[in-house]
Amino acid sequence: MDISVQDFALIDQHRSGRTGYPEAVYCAGKTLDQAEAIIAKMRDQGLPVLGTKANSELGARIRARFPEAEYDELAQTITISGLCPPDKRQGLIAVVAAGTSDLGIAREAARSAEFFGSKVQVISDVGVAGIHRLFARLEDIRKANAVIAVAGMEGALAGVIAGLVSSPVIALPTSVGYGAAFGGISALLGMLTSCAPGISVVNIDNGFGAGYQANLINALAVRR
Amino acid sequence: MDISVQDFALIDQHRSGRTGYPEAVYCAGKTLDQAEAIIAKMRDQGLPVLGTKANSELGARIRARFPEAEYDELAQTITISGLCPPDKRQGLIAVVAAGTSDLGIAREAARSAEFFGSKVQVISDVGVAGIHRLFARLEDIRKANAVIAVAGMEGALAGVIAGLVSSPVIALPTSVGYGAAFGGISALLGMLTSCAPGISVVNIDNGFGAGYQANLINALAVRR
Amino acid sequence: MDISVQDFALIDQHRSGRTGYPEAVYCAGKTLDQAEAIIAKMRDQGLPVLGTKANSELGARIRARFPEAEYDELAQTITISGLCPPDKRQGLIAVVAAGTSDLGIAREAARSAEFFGSKVQVISDVGVAGIHRLFARLEDIRKANAVIAVAGMEGALAGVIAGLVSSPVIALPTSVGYGAAFGGISALLGMLTSCAPGISVVNIDNGFGAGYQANLINALAVRR
Amino acid sequence: MDISVQDFALIDQHRSGRTGYPEAVYCAGKTLDQAEAIIAKMRDQGLPVLGTKANSELGARIRARFPEAEYDELAQTITISGLCPPDKRQGLIAVVAAGTSDLGIAREAARSAEFFGSKVQVISDVGVAGIHRLFARLEDIRKANAVIAVAGMEGALAGVIAGLVSSPVIALPTSVGYGAAFGGISALLGMLTSCAPGISVVNIDNGFGAGYQANLINALAVRR
Amino acid sequence: MDISVQDFALIDQHRSGRTGYPEAVYCAGKTLDQAEAIIAKMRDQGLPVLGTKANSELGARIRARFPEAEYDELAQTITISGLCPPDKRQGLIAVVAAGTSDLGIAREAARSAEFFGSKVQVISDVGVAGIHRLFARLEDIRKANAVIAVAGMEGALAGVIAGLVSSPVIALPTSVGYGAAFGGISALLGMLTSCAPGISVVNIDNGFGAGYQANLINALAVRR
Amino acid sequence: MDISVQDFALIDQHRSGRTGYPEAVYCAGKTLDQAEAIIAKMRDQGLPVLGTKANSELGARIRARFPEAEYDELAQTITISGLCPPDKRQGLIAVVAAGTSDLGIAREAARSAEFFGSKVQVISDVGVAGIHRLFARLEDIRKANAVIAVAGMEGALAGVIAGLVSSPVIALPTSVGYGAAFGGISALLGMLTSCAPGISVVNIDNGFGAGYQANLINALAVRR
Amino acid sequence: MDISVQDFALIDQHRSGRTGYPEAVYCAGKTLDQAEAIIAKMRDQGLPVLGTKANSELGARIRARFPEAEYDELAQTITISGLCPPDKRQGLIAVVAAGTSDLGIAREAARSAEFFGSKVQVISDVGVAGIHRLFARLEDIRKANAVIAVAGMEGALAGVIAGLVSSPVIALPTSVGYGAAFGGISALLGMLTSCAPGISVVNIDNGFGAGYQANLINALAVRR
Amino acid sequence: MDISVQDFALIDQHRSGRTGYPEAVYCAGKTLDQAEAIIAKMRDQGLPVLGTKANSELGARIRARFPEAEYDELAQTITISGLCPPDKRQGLIAVVAAGTSDLGIAREAARSAEFFGSKVQVISDVGVAGIHRLFARLEDIRKANAVIAVAGMEGALAGVIAGLVSSPVIALPTSVGYGAAFGGISALLGMLTSCAPGISVVNIDNGFGAGYQANLINALAVRR
Repeated sequence: MDISVQDFALIDQHRSGRTGYPEAVYCAGKTLDQAEAIIAKMRDQGLPVLGTKANSELGARIRARFPEAEYDELAQTITISGLCPPDKRQGLIAVVAAGTSDLGIAREAARSAEFFGSKVQVISDVGVAGIHRLFARLEDIRKANAVIAVAGMEGALAGVIAGLVSSPVIALPTSVGYGAAFGGISALLGMLTSCAPGISVVNIDNGFGAGYQANLINALAVRR
Repeated sequence: MDISVQDFALIDQHRSGRTGYPEAVYCAGKTLDQAEAIIAKMRDQGLPVLGTKANSELGARIRARFPEAEYDELAQTITISGLCPPDKRQGLIAVVAAGTSDLGIAREAARSAEFFGSKVQVISDVGVAGIHRLFARLEDIRKANAVIAVAGMEGALAGVIAGLVSSPVIALPTSVGYGAAFGGISALLGMLTSCAPGISVVNIDNGFGAGYQANLINALAVRR
Repeated sequence: MDISVQDFALIDQHRSGRTGYPEAVYCAGKTLDQAEAIIAKMRDQGLPVLGTKANSELGARIRARFPEAEYDELAQTITISGLCPPDKRQGLIAVVAAGTSDLGIAREAARSAEFFGSKVQVISDVGVAGIHRLFARLEDIRKANAVIAVAGMEGALAGVIAGLVSSPVIALPTSVGYGAAFGGISALLGMLTSCAPGISVVNIDNGFGAGYQANLINALAVRR
Repeated sequence: MDISVQDFALIDQHRSGRTGYPEAVYCAGKTLDQAEAIIAKMRDQGLPVLGTKANSELGARIRARFPEAEYDELAQTITISGLCPPDKRQGLIAVVAAGTSDLGIAREAARSAEFFGSKVQVISDVGVAGIHRLFARLEDIRKANAVIAVAGMEGALAGVIAGLVSSPVIALPTSVGYGAAFGGISALLGMLTSCAPGISVVNIDNGFGAGYQANLINALAVRR
Repeated sequence: MDISVQDFALIDQHRSGRTGYPEAVYCAGKTLDQAEAIIAKMRDQGLPVLGTKANSELGARIRARFPEAEYDELAQTITISGLCPPDKRQGLIAVVAAGTSDLGIAREAARSAEFFGSKVQVISDVGVAGIHRLFARLEDIRKANAVIAVAGMEGALAGVIAGLVSSPVIALPTSVGYGAAFGGISALLGMLTSCAPGISVVNIDNGFGAGYQANLINALAVRR
Repeated sequence: MDISVQDFALIDQHRSGRTGYPEAVYCAGKTLDQAEAIIAKMRDQGLPVLGTKANSELGARIRARFPEAEYDELAQTITISGLCPPDKRQGLIAVVAAGTSDLGIAREAARSAEFFGSKVQVISDVGVAGIHRLFARLEDIRKANAVIAVAGMEGALAGVIAGLVSSPVIALPTSVGYGAAFGGISALLGMLTSCAPGISVVNIDNGFGAGYQANLINALAVRR
Repeated sequence: MDISVQDFALIDQHRSGRTGYPEAVYCAGKTLDQAEAIIAKMRDQGLPVLGTKANSELGARIRARFPEAEYDELAQTITISGLCPPDKRQGLIAVVAAGTSDLGIAREAARSAEFFGSKVQVISDVGVAGIHRLFARLEDIRKANAVIAVAGMEGALAGVIAGLVSSPVIALPTSVGYGAAFGGISALLGMLTSCAPGISVVNIDNGFGAGYQANLINALAVRR
Repeated sequence: MDISVQDFALIDQHRSGRTGYPEAVYCAGKTLDQAEAIIAKMRDQGLPVLGTKANSELGARIRARFPEAEYDELAQTITISGLCPPDKRQGLIAVVAAGTSDLGIAREAARSAEFFGSKVQVISDVGVAGIHRLFARLEDIRKANAVIAVAGMEGALAGVIAGLVSSPVIALPTSVGYGAAFGGISALLGMLTSCAPGISVVNIDNGFGAGYQANLINALAVRR
């Protein structure tokens, strides 16, 4: 057995050619050393970097080494040199979060979509228990090419929004809640079985996946 | 081992004394003969009868033997001589159903609450995917002392209603749906974890239990 | 993306108008700063505060800032200026707990119901393994307009009580137990499937939800 | 590949030597031909036969071939020449069933215990929703060396009994119920997590297993 | 209680105004009479009809009453007067199915997307066990604005495709398989947790939901 | 709300009268103060004490206050003045553990059975992966009136033993293992579904429950 | 949308080149027409055919069309012109089944392994409840290059065998059993978590997969 | 009760005779003292030692006592005096890991297989999201007698490889991932239900089990 340093960080350099976008770095399952080495290697190759599920210790390390890096503690994201400067972002994605506790995951989605070039608006604290708050923001939500609905607990937000807008809704269940929320399963099932069409769902707490998918959709609309 | 006919149908005659209401007959797990024997025994003792989860074969048998019996095929209920004549029913319970497929269970709830003495209004096809339909019926729903919210799939109806009314909501999940609806688990979990307070939940497809509980609550309000 | 401080604490000010009661603050999923900011904002608007699932660090912080606040460590609740002075509380709710380990959640339920204006009596250590202890307290329990049955493990308490009283029972499963108790699932399922009618169930460990629902029911009875 | 007829019915002839009792035949997973062949082979060897989960078609076949066979349709058992003549049965096992729907499984337990030599009394319709019915039979239950508590739904019967008697309780969950009863899981979990000690549990609907275990315990008491 | 015929078929007539598309009819949970009545009512109002999960008995009935209706037995869909004549369909959606057994659900997705106005290409039998078959069709798949990946069992097809194309992938798990496939759970989980971004997931066997969502995305691209 | 100190520690004093044995104290869900207060109250009443799931901090506290207390760290038990002096213990229970990791739970079972008056022999490291080790101890195991089979992972030990002895086997699943062991579920299911009769099962890691039940059985045998 | 007949039966003709073996036909999820068409197409290309999970109606159809076909009803397999004539089969695989009810799946494994060229011996009715029966056949089992252990319920057979032989064991869980057997989950988990190494597991009831894998292993041994 | 030190470490000395290989030590469920004592006892008997799931504290202790021990922190393995010197290792096993986060478990598999005498090559970062990376290493993978496919999340790697090689694949699911990855369940199910034959699966994170099984298979090939 022989695992060289090269092996564990096999950057998928051709990813942009195939899918249009570079790889992101999922930091949670890696040691700090592994994550840092991968990010450094990507910088060596001139690739922009999006690191997700990055704890604050890693954030501090990366910022010390790459001063241009941004670390968003609530979102747990690291970004270095996004694909697109902020003023060139296009289209619009609405990230709509049910409660304060969902805000971190909502921001992960927003940071990811921005990294890949989309304009994003975050709308928070509009859970269905006080549905007038959602209606008050409906005009804003309707302007978006894609909507990310972020909610834990029963996850009803996605279905209610999908019945009110004409854009595709990406449902993003969070692990917010306790007891029968089962770490997000309840929200996930609610979103999958919603009686409103126009919803598709990503993994629990997968802000990155939701932001990436919404960006792909938004890009189709603005590419014209 | 010796099981006399008496044993398998031990009517809980003192139930009314303890809880104020007589026993109902859950027909699903019994043979037709057992169910018929229990109902006959209750009639012999002059007790009013509510049979639930009764299939049409049993319904026909009971109606043949007791011509005064009513059988509701959609609700799968048998009623003989309810506790209270229809014109003496009091208060109000709103049974609010998300879709056409939930109507059978909704009617089981309504029939049960009526049997025990409550006035009931059934409001159907007001699922959250087209939420304006719910708002159009809101004034009616707000008149009730208790609301039964009946929904399968993601079960979001209960939480949306609870955020809009001041009465207690009894959430009644149904097994309507497929795939990740898991025979009602998805609706059950959604209702249990709703971020709106003022909800308590009964078993999947337990129309009887919801109607019974709503009747107890309604009775508290009208007893004055 | 731009999330102002205003956004993450969008108090639902109209809630009282719709449902009769102000919002409570679920503290568990929020940072200390977020929870404190929301509570402060509510106080600025003159709203009474009920904070649930508040750890002792938050309790200390809030008490330092708002000396009139009460923090109940066992219940993990913060209350500031309840809706109703203690001597004006009305009706009666019985909170019946199976064992010592269920006492914290039982108190959360009691504190919540009191906050919204109900008189509450807590009865503890009356689990079904020694059922005479329950019978000894039955007269007290029968006086209540609503009963909250608090139990972990097999959750049998709710069904036994519901067979003995004429008031609605709110079943409150707790995560007490280990192994096949599965963090409260076992109690939850037992309560949902009880053969005794007159039970509806809230989420595992959701003392607030049980207290809120029981208060709604109690209010119907005393409103006369 | 070569499977002779001998192979699929390898009677465990030495079982009595090791464990004191002969093998029973679990008929459910076998074709009618397989089940009949195994029973015939056992008769050829002079072994007494207990067949469980035997449907009525098999029952009729066996009775046609072995006129001395008894088939109990409710219990779904076939017995031929039990280990002990009825009048020689010893000790006492109480089989206590919560409701009419549990009666089939209760009888399977009773038939099995009788087959192996125990005296059995079946007590039915004493579920915890009307607990006075249980108290009325308590003296009978206390006479038994072992108690089998048979219940579906929340399975609370086992825990209540175990708190009232000094004999070991074998808890036998049944698949009676619907929705969150999950085919007996709810009862199984409730019985496993009961706060009353003195309970051990067998598989859902495993009347045979409960009867066998109770017989082993009863035999220890009467062996003296 | 009083449920008029009007109530159970409350067509959401304003849906097009809000979301751009009319309601579809989910036939599975309804009686034949209910489904037929709803479809007839929609025809009375001049609405185009898409019925899903329609068995052949319903298909025959509808075709007898509305000769212009099309019934696709494999897809279990009924269509009457789609939103867009076949030659006006725009853009492109690729529906890529892993195996022959997934074909019915794949066609449900295709029929739905066509109904709402998208051009669709179905590509079948390209599961990952023989991955060269997928590569042989890659050029076709890359032409689509949205890809629907249909697979049961381990559902790996979605992740492999998402790593090869630049369009959003809608993952559609099917209940094909047995044992640990758990009626589609295995495929569902695999699709939700895929390490490739650019995937969002609909409910198990929800061909309609996948087709609807893909159509929304395709419409964004062709609207230009 | 008013909870006096008396309330949370309602000792079930009549338990011995009903069931023959005093209550044990389950320490895990209680605060140190609660657990100590309950134990002190029992000592005041002259009751012998068995505390289970007691961590070492509690053990030290109790030993400081009651020097006659014994604390077994591996078993996590506290015992004060058992029901029966060691030299008066009767009969025999064999506690058979599959591996070293199961030893703590095995000792909890042994300590509990001894507390109530049974003689106990612990036999360890005889898992089925090296089945000759079990055979080497078989004569010892066969001497017992009841056998407790302790195993995690697949829990096969219980079934293998039950096929080899004539005493009832109490199967005690442990949470030993990882991955698909699911904290003891795998062992629990294996023990419940064993094809060998003569097994009944207690909760995962419930050493106390197994020891208590085995003691009841052993007592039946020695009572003669 | 346009699905030609060609599409749904895209035979993976190059499979032999890549993996050494041709494709098998999983018949369960296909219509009779689809299954027959695929088999006919394979025959046209001169490929040998192994059809699995084939019901007797399909078996009859195929035998009518291809008289050389063999249909094994218990195994539910169709074979036409195996890869290797019976007398050229090599090496040895032992298929060891716990009970009569496991025999069908065991034969599916055996038929599959033979089809691909292995010699197979089936040994039945050697479950761990009567472990001496297993020991009696141990010499035969030890001769095999690979062992397939077939069991439902607790699935303990695999672990016991793996502790006794030096060949790799392929564990094949079956859906035999009821209640907590959960359609094979219990056996599957037991096999996955066995404390004996030298086991790897296939899907529940996947006789084909076990036979295929065992054949690959056997081929490595005989290839020398 | 009396447990001598001898008892808890009953080394299975005859294991080599039966299965060809000595026991390994699973360190996770044991105290440091227990693990060290067992390892010391094995060294006393001259047995080579493989310790798995060993944390760094145990690693340090063992290295202090046995300087010849090797501790691999990423793999969490301790090895002392393997069965075969490195230059005598035979055949070839390919350990193929999907991502960097899977590397620890992959190395546990590799270390285990080497310990028992196999040559091993580890190939990393070839997950299916960038499938060209896998193709680039295919020639190496095809040289192996057995392949271990290591992946978390959806676990698709195993199926893709099995469709491309002619050797048996041992699928090793890891707990890498979050949300619906459910600690490895998602990968486990995906691997069990893969449509590609030639796969068998070990427990989640069971690197040792995979390495052991692959070594058995590799040994069959090189034994010739």
